Amino acid sequence: MQPDNETEQPSHFGNDGNAQALRLFAQAQPTLVDVQPAAKVIPILKQDTILHAGPPITWDAMCPAMRGGILGALVYEGLANNLVEAQRLAASGTIRFAPAQNHGAIGSGCGILSGSMPVWVIEDRANHTHAYAPVGDGLRRGLQHGANGPETINRLNWLEGFLAPRLRTLIAKSDGLELFPLLRSAVQMGDEAHVRNKAAMQLLQLTLLPLMLNSKIANKDMNEIFAFLRGHNGLFLNLTLAACKAAWHKAEFISSTLVTAIASNGVEMGIRLNGSWHTAPAPMIEGCYLPDYSHESANPLLGDDNIAEVSGLGGFAAGSAPAINDAVGKTAEELLDATLQMYEITADTSPHFVLPILNNRGAPTGIDVAKVVSTGIAPFATAFVMHRQPGVGHIGSGVWRAPLELFTRAFASLTPTTLDASIARN
Amino acid sequence: MQPDNETEQPSHFGNDGNAQALRLFAQAQPTLVDVQPAAKVIPILKQDTILHAGPPITWDAMCPAMRGGILGALVYEGLANNLVEAQRLAASGTIRFAPAQNHGAIGSGCGILSGSMPVWVIEDRANHTHAYAPVGDGLRRGLQHGANGPETINRLNWLEGFLAPRLRTLIAKSDGLELFPLLRSAVQMGDEAHVRNKAAMQLLQLTLLPLMLNSKIANKDMNEIFAFLRGHNGLFLNLTLAACKAAWHKAEFISSTLVTAIASNGVEMGIRLNGSWHTAPAPMIEGCYLPDYSHESANPLLGDDNIAEVSGLGGFAAGSAPAINDAVGKTAEELLDATLQMYEITADTSPHFVLPILNNRGAPTGIDVAKVVSTGIAPFATAFVMHRQPGVGHIGSGVWRAPLELFTRAFASLTPTTLDASIARN
Repeated sequence: MQPDNETEQPSHFGNDGNAQALRLFAQAQPTLVDVQPAAKVIPILKQDTILHAGPPITWDAMCPAMRGGILGALVYEGLANNLVEAQRLAASGTIRFAPAQNHGAIGSGCGILSGSMPVWVIEDRANHTHAYAPVGDGLRRGLQHGANGPETINRLNWLEGFLAPRLRTLIAKSDGLELFPLLRSAVQMGDEAHVRNKAAMQLLQLTLLPLMLNSKIANKDMNEIFAFLRGHNGLFLNLTLAACKAAWHKAEFISSTLVTAIASNGVEMGIRLNGSWHTAPAPMIEGCYLPDYSHESANPLLGDDNIAEVSGLGGFAAGSAPAINDAVGKTAEELLDATLQMYEITADTSPHFVLPILNNRGAPTGIDVAKVVSTGIAPFATAFVMHRQPGVGHIGSGVWRAPLELFTRAFASLTPTTLDASIARN
Repeated sequence: MQPDNETEQPSHFGNDGNAQALRLFAQAQPTLVDVQPAAKVIPILKQDTILHAGPPITWDAMCPAMRGGILGALVYEGLANNLVEAQRLAASGTIRFAPAQNHGAIGSGCGILSGSMPVWVIEDRANHTHAYAPVGDGLRRGLQHGANGPETINRLNWLEGFLAPRLRTLIAKSDGLELFPLLRSAVQMGDEAHVRNKAAMQLLQLTLLPLMLNSKIANKDMNEIFAFLRGHNGLFLNLTLAACKAAWHKAEFISSTLVTAIASNGVEMGIRLNGSWHTAPAPMIEGCYLPDYSHESANPLLGDDNIAEVSGLGGFAAGSAPAINDAVGKTAEELLDATLQMYEITADTSPHFVLPILNNRGAPTGIDVAKVVSTGIAPFATAFVMHRQPGVGHIGSGVWRAPLELFTRAFASLTPTTLDASIARN
């Protein structure tokens, strides 16, 4: 923040930290540089640990969908021969569970990560940080939505044995694939990059295409890979989340009034401020359902997805993505109004993502808890709605607002002492 | 039009013809079915004829850019050994010139078509019509912009000898590529499908990709083809124009108050009504120029491109494509206002192209001269700006409004007798 804006702040504390955090995000160059087995790049996964979305949670407290995904992961890893054994193992206390975001990783849906799963390796070349996200298994019958049957396990094996090594070879031959410029183009093409990822997935395919044609990969295999990518636009979301995670990673440990993540484990949602989680019950999504589904079958918010909003995407860019109107059940005007409101609770406009509908004004970026508290405006987000029961997955899309009391409590936790220290440090 | 709308009409004549024309357009399924040498599908090109954009014009009256392109075509066809010979031949009277749109063809820029040039073959599978457009040679140093040097001729030879046969093979293996659904997606992704064709070109590449991977085309050749397509988003425009031409073709010969084409040869612009041209001097474009260029070097409007606007694209969809704002020098609000105005002069909303910014309202479609005259609102269009001199090509983009007096005159030409006949015929 510039000094002449300080009068708009409810507190002068933390502004130096804010400026520093925003500068780190503004210079970020998150780049897809590799695909690796998770355990190779996330040390804790070498042990008997499974990562999950959102703030910390115990096995007993998890929602059925998240448990379902974890059981699938245990079978996939060969730690259990079947789901009954997996259930016993998971409840035994010998498996540890930890939030992916506490270990540099991030994921949509249940965000389940176990050691053998291939992850996108994102390097922020400006900030020298890394972040990881599951290469993912799509929206239907995916482990990330609690599925754990043979179809899901087989696809995980295909991801590990077929897709990942080929992607690794392609990416190795490239200079790395810088993700924010690609997302910038996608936003120009009507993606808000959370529930709509169509342009981003097209751009990814067209970026991989020349690498593919110059590789030794057989045409048959190329066809298989492109068919998979074409059928799963949502697969791009994990790349977006990991790019955002890498871009905010250093800022997580700077004393500031900026939220560096919003995420939910399906029971509790949390915001991350100065590297700590502040939690509240996970909200329901105001959903627009696929045929045969309704509010009754919906799980509360689930996934690390809302780092997209923190970064100026998702609900914060929805006004510029009116093509999502049918999917989320909001008019173009409502989406634009919500996005415009977000400028009142953010500390910056994005240097990365610009909104054509606002004549290329940068997207509202950097949620400032101080502004949320002083304006009473809650962050607005888009979301996929997940079924409560494991294995069904995506049953709709919608929007939600973060509970204000969470921001009030988080703001109250910021003592002048902490903030003074942060200012002194800069 | 429904009877209850008739009170809004300045005349009750022609409404049955309008309804019939709109029905034909609404049911259209223009499909890319082949790529062929122009002379094979457009009989007049077997003789010493060259087609051009816009209404009829003589060699003497043509603008320098159009003449430049024609000279290039004569050299390319081997009818002249060099540009001096070509100049002599063109002026000799032995070469005939005709508007492409009088012969089922259409083209952006100068719209030059000679017999050997490969054309996209579009079949409207609902209306059983065909239309043709040059496969095109891109925006820079293209024949369509009056260029005629060795680089241009070499590229034409590459199009004819390398690209066209491979595209023909691919399309033959497909079921045909239906273009309006593709354009519908492109409009959802921020193309107005006249000056912005980025999404459409991506969709085309991704549609060709599996065909390509299943073909015997060598990887090296695929790379060459995709690199060409990737570098020339504007190439998609001719496909759009031919799709629109095929969709309106039958309507051209129905007595109605609907404009079925707006086009310019760079000297005169014309609108087509009931199969006849009505002309006025070609207007200048309110342009936004590339560095080093200005209004002084701009040619008046040139090209058959505005059948896009007639079909609900271009300026008629610009409000839903705010990403063009920088290119055309208009704000998102100005573009939306202009598009909203177009509903006042059109007879229908598009069943093909819907505008997300208006909550998927169909784009304004079917310019009704009666409404233009009664409201005094002139059609609004986007456009590429061409350099006055041959060979420079695209020097900017912009917007323009069709001269009202042209519509007044065209409307005056519609006698009650003609219109009564059209009503009786239905």
